[in-house]
Amino acid sequence: MKLRALGEFGLIEQIRQKVVDPASVYRGIGDDAAELSLPDGHRLLTSTDMLIEGVHFRFEWTDSHSLGRKAVAVNLSDLAAMGGTPSFLYLSLACPVDVDFTEVEAFFEGALAEMATFQVTLVGGDTCRSPGPWVISVTVEGHVSPGDSVGRLQARPGDVILVSGTLGDSALALNHLKSHLPVDPYLLQRHLRPLPRIALGQALGAQHLASAMIDISDGLSADLGHLLMPAGLDALLDAAQIPLSSAFRDVVRDQPDFFELALHGGEDYELLFTATPENVPAVMALSDSLNVPVSAIGKLEKGSGQIKLRQTTGRIDPVLARGYDHFGPSQKTPEGRNA
Amino acid sequence: MKLRALGEFGLIEQIRQKVVDPASVYRGIGDDAAELSLPDGHRLLTSTDMLIEGVHFRFEWTDSHSLGRKAVAVNLSDLAAMGGTPSFLYLSLACPVDVDFTEVEAFFEGALAEMATFQVTLVGGDTCRSPGPWVISVTVEGHVSPGDSVGRLQARPGDVILVSGTLGDSALALNHLKSHLPVDPYLLQRHLRPLPRIALGQALGAQHLASAMIDISDGLSADLGHLLMPAGLDALLDAAQIPLSSAFRDVVRDQPDFFELALHGGEDYELLFTATPENVPAVMALSDSLNVPVSAIGKLEKGSGQIKLRQTTGRIDPVLARGYDHFGPSQKTPEGRNA
Repeated sequence: MKLRALGEFGLIEQIRQKVVDPASVYRGIGDDAAELSLPDGHRLLTSTDMLIEGVHFRFEWTDSHSLGRKAVAVNLSDLAAMGGTPSFLYLSLACPVDVDFTEVEAFFEGALAEMATFQVTLVGGDTCRSPGPWVISVTVEGHVSPGDSVGRLQARPGDVILVSGTLGDSALALNHLKSHLPVDPYLLQRHLRPLPRIALGQALGAQHLASAMIDISDGLSADLGHLLMPAGLDALLDAAQIPLSSAFRDVVRDQPDFFELALHGGEDYELLFTATPENVPAVMALSDSLNVPVSAIGKLEKGSGQIKLRQTTGRIDPVLARGYDHFGPSQKTPEGRNA
Repeated sequence: MKLRALGEFGLIEQIRQKVVDPASVYRGIGDDAAELSLPDGHRLLTSTDMLIEGVHFRFEWTDSHSLGRKAVAVNLSDLAAMGGTPSFLYLSLACPVDVDFTEVEAFFEGALAEMATFQVTLVGGDTCRSPGPWVISVTVEGHVSPGDSVGRLQARPGDVILVSGTLGDSALALNHLKSHLPVDPYLLQRHLRPLPRIALGQALGAQHLASAMIDISDGLSADLGHLLMPAGLDALLDAAQIPLSSAFRDVVRDQPDFFELALHGGEDYELLFTATPENVPAVMALSDSLNVPVSAIGKLEKGSGQIKLRQTTGRIDPVLARGYDHFGPSQKTPEGRNA
């Protein structure tokens, strides 16, 4: 069935039927606004993302279900990077009227499946036609105890730089997709199904183990830059410690240039955070208990936002942050990256 | 200066410099998520809207500053329709990279001016390039005391139907814009600068005077339909009581067909609500004290979602709700309407 036949209110009703409201939702889908309660004494955390076909994604490289999952996951990742607990989500979708309903349904089912994984409830959104590209806007609301959130500005000289998971997998998959090369299934899954590190972020915040935290959406160098510049810090990274998956290593063994993707690639959606050296053992204990790999990849020094990399040869080279800038001169083609 | 030269982070910094955070904002623009507090014991109200160039607006008919104001105003109107107080706002914008910064700045200045009118703070959003149309996504967060919010489902047979302001002005202006006819300045202002009825909505909620409430975005008949259908009600409207501005009357005097725009036109952003007959005097006293016109336009009966109109001749005709459906067959050209 085409969306034209189902109609806007038919679509909304289809979505509403898939959602069960918890007790904290006084009014959910279908009113002018959602009415919600937070746990007593908690603060509200909110993040919003926009994703546009041809800029952030291409249907050539993703199916609708994966797109729905990823649209939610990258938004939840922002709350993870604050140490927060996501609760409520608003999903707005604009698409052409001649899209088949099965595509839209798969998109919403993917989004709802991702929400269910993290006990997040869909409580609102907007639906409209688009004159061209699919446009998705996602807003997530969650909560955090006062004092437990982790910002970007409190890193200090001497702090250790840590990162969850492995880097570069998603960018390598995208590189192969763009080049019409076969893509390793593990790398493809890392690109299509990022895993928001909610439990790790929550624990780091609640135990006050991280001095600063951000999720890696634009790439290690760019997102590390966001922690360095405002705090007057430099970073010294150790190339040997950058965590790489075995699938990534297999490729880099033959083509060493691809190592750059672990530094600059983007869309890892891993947590990049800093901790005092005294807190590192507690971080590693947390990593073990949550079964989320965490690697210490360098340390912070007083400075002016520079990143240096100690090569495996021992030589130290400057790293130029190659941030993804949506309006900058570097972007020419869809990159599949999220601002 | 082109956006390409300013860059994404330059743009965000320009916006951030225009914002002053109140004490309830612990983290605002520039982190992964905003961290906020609500007044003790209040519930969170959230609404989100997406606006797309060519679907919801055309630069042929609006300037960037007015667009910014309106994008915010229509979103605040949703909170007014719940009886809520808006506090925080997230503004996401996608536009082509070759747009001049002055256009984007005017858009944000318009948005911020509208926010300032209602003591609403910009705390987040997203910026990215668009492959074609401007895309705007706005999310507002506010609060309401438990039990004071007004939904859509509690209207009862015998309740009086009331509406703020006048109807049809915006649709008439849009009609003239589309037809390349001169537009009366008052009507044009009603189209470009809708006034969210925050104070009226708050008072109706706090004093428990309204049984159901919605803001008119799709047109009186369509939005009244949203109150009738789920509650098993019919509406009998009185044509003589539909509130019309003198500018609107001037046009209708010569072209009576345009009266239809007061019934179906859309984008009025007035509050449509219901009240028991006993509460109507208190509503009218509120209208006087707030200096917001309110008109009683009909009453509710048991039924199945039908709307009937008592003509000035006394004859009663059925009114077919002509809702704006984004995916429905009726839409062919940009209507300037908001879902």
